[in-house]
Amino acid sequence: MRKPRIAILGATGVVGREITKITNELGIDYESIKFLSSARSAGSKIAFKGKEYTVEEAKPEVFDNIDIVMASAGASTSKLFAPEIVKRGGLIIDNSSAFRMENDVPLVIAGVNDEDLRKHKGIIANPNCSTSQLMLVLEPLKKFGIKRLIVSTYQAVSGAGLAAINELKDDTVANLENKFFENKCFKKPISFNVIPQIDVFCDNGYTKEEMKVVNETRKILHLDENTLISCTAARVPVFNGHSEAVDIEFAEKITPEMARDILKNAYGVKVIDNPENYEYPTTRDASGVDPVFVGRIRKNLAFENGISLWCVADNLRIGAALNTVRICKRVIEMELY
Amino acid sequence: MRKPRIAILGATGVVGREITKITNELGIDYESIKFLSSARSAGSKIAFKGKEYTVEEAKPEVFDNIDIVMASAGASTSKLFAPEIVKRGGLIIDNSSAFRMENDVPLVIAGVNDEDLRKHKGIIANPNCSTSQLMLVLEPLKKFGIKRLIVSTYQAVSGAGLAAINELKDDTVANLENKFFENKCFKKPISFNVIPQIDVFCDNGYTKEEMKVVNETRKILHLDENTLISCTAARVPVFNGHSEAVDIEFAEKITPEMARDILKNAYGVKVIDNPENYEYPTTRDASGVDPVFVGRIRKNLAFENGISLWCVADNLRIGAALNTVRICKRVIEMELY
Repeated sequence: MRKPRIAILGATGVVGREITKITNELGIDYESIKFLSSARSAGSKIAFKGKEYTVEEAKPEVFDNIDIVMASAGASTSKLFAPEIVKRGGLIIDNSSAFRMENDVPLVIAGVNDEDLRKHKGIIANPNCSTSQLMLVLEPLKKFGIKRLIVSTYQAVSGAGLAAINELKDDTVANLENKFFENKCFKKPISFNVIPQIDVFCDNGYTKEEMKVVNETRKILHLDENTLISCTAARVPVFNGHSEAVDIEFAEKITPEMARDILKNAYGVKVIDNPENYEYPTTRDASGVDPVFVGRIRKNLAFENGISLWCVADNLRIGAALNTVRICKRVIEMELY
Repeated sequence: MRKPRIAILGATGVVGREITKITNELGIDYESIKFLSSARSAGSKIAFKGKEYTVEEAKPEVFDNIDIVMASAGASTSKLFAPEIVKRGGLIIDNSSAFRMENDVPLVIAGVNDEDLRKHKGIIANPNCSTSQLMLVLEPLKKFGIKRLIVSTYQAVSGAGLAAINELKDDTVANLENKFFENKCFKKPISFNVIPQIDVFCDNGYTKEEMKVVNETRKILHLDENTLISCTAARVPVFNGHSEAVDIEFAEKITPEMARDILKNAYGVKVIDNPENYEYPTTRDASGVDPVFVGRIRKNLAFENGISLWCVADNLRIGAALNTVRICKRVIEMELY
């Protein structure tokens, strides 16, 4: 099979830049590569593997002769271009929420449900960041039967983009200097605060972010209605790296020691769990690296066969860019483009 | 009954200062008042109700002729002086963890279990901050039968004292300037980070802070072993105000509307819950004021009769100083000194 002709859509955004970097790190082999953005960022330069590329404006015709598009440009852009890409015989690996819950779109975490990739019809979706890190942790424990899952997230601002990162910085400086600051990205001040809202609210009182954890987890792990899932998603003043307090009830007996041993050997997971020596993961450990870190593995005190754990990962990498490029790599290996 | 002779022990600390302020705000009527500290801070001046007081060093004999001591000076100081206070016929309202779980020591949240005050034998304990705010929310819902309670906390640094507040500030500035900072109060960097440890670890893998939520909740609400409680306590880079994601399973049917109506009329609670208008509590709303704020009241998706909610309060006030002074006020009204 010939090497793929690749495009990165949304190349100038936070996640797009990570995709570009990781495409190099994972040694993706391609025939050609191009970088696409909105009209506003088109014309800017990207240095990649010793060559300089000019970012092109995304229009239907730029997808002629492209095999794989790695996209991180928001749901409306994906909705606009996905049909154009598919029509031209290309495959889009999409970071947005646009197609995740559609029946004929595989929603994939590489290393968790790779076989679902075979069912693609031109669109493969990348799960939401807060779901993604959890999947690598839950998949190896799934065999004990997940009855209930309760997740409380502590999410970094980087998931909301470059403007949000700058807003946390600027708001923090203003706060320390007792100056007024008007928040734009966030609905409430983000510096030294916790905001119990990520994305907009649904009719059931949950945010879209929370319902993504509920629905995407079910789809990726092929869980039926017997598994009950609830989530609270909160934004914390952290630049990068999501943390999650996870409480799981299993159908079968499982001890913290069993869970720890399984996770120590799990794909994409690194266990840091010697609390007596202050060894547990924090976002500072996770930012900029690939593993999903797990610690504080202990018996949950409210469930009979329960495990509680603390899970931390770089939301821009495993939650978005890393998984996108890992999927791209799998697609190439499995010859699915 | 004559007015009480009052002492504030630990008067120069973060919580002691709040106790002093709130003693004035709640109009506590006294015959005399004095301010006590360790030898290090003794001699400093405190302005109170237009008078200047000199802080005295705490020694057994300063508790002669004192009726009520409001203490926030740490567990070892409380253990040292409580017997001396009781021996002299005084009553100590103690903020530390020293006596909370002792059988003959009432553990009280004013407005929740005031009747327990009648059982005191010279020592009344004030619950831990993360438990305190939760009690005012759970007490009015208790009649539906609490089967399971899962709490994830987002705790401010102020609970760890003045040095911790300064450390968050200094670490934040250093981080923004890309300078090295050595943390002392916290075991990990606190700026732009989340630390899943508060207090030391117990043998079961939980921190003392987490087990306080489990055990103190049971004692205050008089819950038996049929109520299962689990907790994850994490420190977030917030100066003041604890947030909690709370998931509750009830024995009886309860809807979010029912819970919202009950909490709207509950003592010490303020409901802010119009998420469609971005109305929900954040720590910025809670800092410096009395109520426990509740929002995001919704059906928990993992429990049949389940409610999830978001609860925010000023941990220095309701979690420590406010409840101490409220207990003092009840003790005076109930003539229990």
